Amino acid sequence: MAMIRAMRVAPLALRAGCLTALAGSAAFSTSAPAPKNIKLYYFDFAFWRAETIRLALFVGGVPFDDVRDVKNAELKEQGKLTFGSVPVLEVDGRILSQTQAMASYAGKLAGMHPDDPWLEAKVDECINGCTDVTMTVGGTFRLPEEEKMAARAAMVQPDGRLLVQLGGLEKICKENGSNGYAVGDSITVADLAICGVAKWLSSGVLDGIPADIVQTKFPAIAKVKSTVLSHPKVQEWAAAHPKDYGKK
Amino acid sequence: MAMIRAMRVAPLALRAGCLTALAGSAAFSTSAPAPKNIKLYYFDFAFWRAETIRLALFVGGVPFDDVRDVKNAELKEQGKLTFGSVPVLEVDGRILSQTQAMASYAGKLAGMHPDDPWLEAKVDECINGCTDVTMTVGGTFRLPEEEKMAARAAMVQPDGRLLVQLGGLEKICKENGSNGYAVGDSITVADLAICGVAKWLSSGVLDGIPADIVQTKFPAIAKVKSTVLSHPKVQEWAAAHPKDYGKK
Repeated sequence: MAMIRAMRVAPLALRAGCLTALAGSAAFSTSAPAPKNIKLYYFDFAFWRAETIRLALFVGGVPFDDVRDVKNAELKEQGKLTFGSVPVLEVDGRILSQTQAMASYAGKLAGMHPDDPWLEAKVDECINGCTDVTMTVGGTFRLPEEEKMAARAAMVQPDGRLLVQLGGLEKICKENGSNGYAVGDSITVADLAICGVAKWLSSGVLDGIPADIVQTKFPAIAKVKSTVLSHPKVQEWAAAHPKDYGKK
Repeated sequence: MAMIRAMRVAPLALRAGCLTALAGSAAFSTSAPAPKNIKLYYFDFAFWRAETIRLALFVGGVPFDDVRDVKNAELKEQGKLTFGSVPVLEVDGRILSQTQAMASYAGKLAGMHPDDPWLEAKVDECINGCTDVTMTVGGTFRLPEEEKMAARAAMVQPDGRLLVQLGGLEKICKENGSNGYAVGDSITVADLAICGVAKWLSSGVLDGIPADIVQTKFPAIAKVKSTVLSHPKVQEWAAAHPKDYGKK
């Protein structure tokens, strides 16, 4: 049983290796060679859309170039911004975009995305829920100050959009047993994404959104955040990136 | 080789059956029994977010209840609206939401989501790109008439958001060889989603967005739309739903 659990989140590279011995079975057409070269393009900060991918690859021991010094205009000129924005992943010269697609792919490489189709779908659901939260808050960034504050005040009301969306993530975590994982009983990219969103909301940079909103109203999300931030490899990453992770 | 290709898109139920013979290998912890009962909750029309899932299940021969007559308020009261909105899937009593998560899950059940992790990610990328397009257009629905027209005029400029996003989908289809499929060389849920978005944009219901925008500017997307609409099972579905598919 322990072996099966371990395999469930075994990195793709390892799985591909294991499966080589069984080559010839059509069922194994699913295994693919691990990529040789992975670049993540994003700005030099830890916003969750990129940080989920960085952390997944780092925690999973998958080598990658964490490219933070190439301007968007240059990436655009090189045809790398499929939908006009970063982050994007370049994998053996091929571009992949869209937060969930990249996070789930990185999660598979890293052994942090379950193989069971239902659990896979729940992980994807969480990441897309994080994108919803981000769109809700992000939609206020360019508003004039007064309108921005009004919009943020509305979204944190009991029926407000932000509370409904965080409530959705909380519900998923609770249905999973409030065990510190959003899906299943080991760390996945869903946890990394949820932790990243919770960190952002709690950081105090979002005027009009109470910085303790996760801590006080969404205990299952707060527990996921703790699980991730206390993971030894995440702590190693945080220590190497003090600008992004403060002194914690 | 033909056998391997066929397996790549074999429905989960079939794959699970195949894999039973090999049970005991830890590598097979990925196979899961096919669900017994699937309900899709949505309104009584063919918007792509729900229609992608309906079509995938129908084309793949996966039985499901196409529930169109339950009010959102009732679903909310039953705790089924995780993020506050439909569509949602109920699978053996468990709820799944988020368009991409549901579409990819349905695609796996139906044999319309590839197993190769890179191709899986490209399918997910397309579905999320379709959501971006929908958010861009959808963001104008509640604007006063004049503002709405101005916003739509801006989004269809060469650097406008809608054109950039459709350009992203076109780029993915072109990189795949403009072969009538967004990813790989057989039909996936990405094609269903892209076809649905293209149908919506071409339907003439969106004032200020030229109804021929896909046909004239995005030939690879238009080809995907043709592929899907000429699929025998899609034609069978369309014939059974004349209200949604007109006389075609």
